[in-house]
Amino acid sequence: MTDAPLIAGVELGGTKINCILARGPDAIAEEVQIPTTSPEQTLAAIEAVLERWRGFAALGIASFGPISIDRSSEHYGHITATPKPDWANTDVARRLARQTAVPTGFHTDVVGAALAEARWGAAAGLADLAYVTVGTGIGVGLIAGGKPLDGLTHSELGHIRVARVAGDAWPGVCPFHGDCLEGLASGPAIAARAGKPAQMLSSEDPAWDGVAHALGQLLHTLVLTGVPRRIVMGGGVMVGTAHLFPRVRAAMTASLAGYVSLDEVAQADTYIVPPGLGDRAGPLGAIVLGEQALHGGSPS
Amino acid sequence: MTDAPLIAGVELGGTKINCILARGPDAIAEEVQIPTTSPEQTLAAIEAVLERWRGFAALGIASFGPISIDRSSEHYGHITATPKPDWANTDVARRLARQTAVPTGFHTDVVGAALAEARWGAAAGLADLAYVTVGTGIGVGLIAGGKPLDGLTHSELGHIRVARVAGDAWPGVCPFHGDCLEGLASGPAIAARAGKPAQMLSSEDPAWDGVAHALGQLLHTLVLTGVPRRIVMGGGVMVGTAHLFPRVRAAMTASLAGYVSLDEVAQADTYIVPPGLGDRAGPLGAIVLGEQALHGGSPS
Repeated sequence: MTDAPLIAGVELGGTKINCILARGPDAIAEEVQIPTTSPEQTLAAIEAVLERWRGFAALGIASFGPISIDRSSEHYGHITATPKPDWANTDVARRLARQTAVPTGFHTDVVGAALAEARWGAAAGLADLAYVTVGTGIGVGLIAGGKPLDGLTHSELGHIRVARVAGDAWPGVCPFHGDCLEGLASGPAIAARAGKPAQMLSSEDPAWDGVAHALGQLLHTLVLTGVPRRIVMGGGVMVGTAHLFPRVRAAMTASLAGYVSLDEVAQADTYIVPPGLGDRAGPLGAIVLGEQALHGGSPS
Repeated sequence: MTDAPLIAGVELGGTKINCILARGPDAIAEEVQIPTTSPEQTLAAIEAVLERWRGFAALGIASFGPISIDRSSEHYGHITATPKPDWANTDVARRLARQTAVPTGFHTDVVGAALAEARWGAAAGLADLAYVTVGTGIGVGLIAGGKPLDGLTHSELGHIRVARVAGDAWPGVCPFHGDCLEGLASGPAIAARAGKPAQMLSSEDPAWDGVAHALGQLLHTLVLTGVPRRIVMGGGVMVGTAHLFPRVRAAMTASLAGYVSLDEVAQADTYIVPPGLGDRAGPLGAIVLGEQALHGGSPS
């Protein structure tokens, strides 16, 4: 671990920024948290931290989305069409790459978390995996062959359409789609339906049936992409809701209905797992993004 | 084109095998068709053709599925759990690679078609695309960064679950899932519902509404993967059913509901397109798989 290069990581969240200087989970030199306020104030605070840390070999940035990851685009490195006030069309990665002048990686927070789980966590050693976060929104990070899967843009599979439980016509809360996956199974969806936060719902509450049914279809879809050898599920709705794991595993298995006959998928207890790194997956994901930029040799 | 290496391609279909010796679409040296009978008889006939052609630089095989593409598995190169009589667990790629002793590529027929369309067809020059076939079944080939997207296995996204048209409870025909996408929108599904083949249905037939609605959700899901810069749609249901293209484009746009604000997707007429190579995409896909094996340097 001490031979690993020193990397600076920045995890941009909607309410706070985690800055981390580390060689890996067992060699963290320093961590700094910054509140997310206006883009200019926040980025200036990040720049001050990075200036103080100068000497690191690469920078990784794991951001809330949507973001532009198309290096051929003038918008590369920007947070794009976010509803978060003042943050739409904000350059993050090119600005910080210019300041630090080191190879800079940039991707979504869920792709970062997936990379960290693949490196040090619940999917250690696997080159093909998915990380799903179920919280304020539903996000999916997909890794194939050790690299973030993308082409035109990054995954937004939290917004897939789903078949409904028979007889259930609750309209969902997604402002775009109503009853897409996020509109049915995110934290705000559960709270809207049940009248209280997911963390306060009894495991017997009938609201969980629709949540598990919808999440099972995301897992069904992820299996059918052919990519993941394991799916790590985190986020505020999954963490601390232990009864939900057996339910989503059962919903996936019922939904696939024997169509995919692979041992990995059949062993649902080891196919669908909680994070190994807990809330460290985010900042450590930024470290892996920095490492990949260093080894890929592609400064922003 | 004449500088390109001479490649042998084998497209394995359920009813016939296309063998092709070519440098590309404008330099086809020979083509041979073989009926698909028993595995032993069929493979021996393919071997006889390849023996006669000896001297080619690489071999590409594009096969009906499901197949094993995991090179670390003892089953690599096999057709696996197909319901096709006698073909389950049939070694194809390792057998033909042993015989020919050249670098051998092996993937699904839809991935082959996607690669051919990306090389010479309707997605020429694009490294990130999807090819969807809607026929006897619904198959999806995904290419990211110029390479087939896979990890654990290949895509089976034709079997995603879909939201139903309000009030429609027709049960679908998929033996595994009933009303999954393939169960609602494949050729046999349309024929079962309408009482006659898709090709004989009037464009006003109400059966098309459910078909377009379901296919629109596949396109929605493919957009949300973040991968394709274009989606090519072929197969017996799409080809010759010109009115279906505007319908599936409109269904995709309605389903996304403005969530993805990318120019490429907004221009649905150039995002969702028919094949440029028509029925040549299959055998030419095998040629590209052979080329990739040659340049990747990984004999089976």
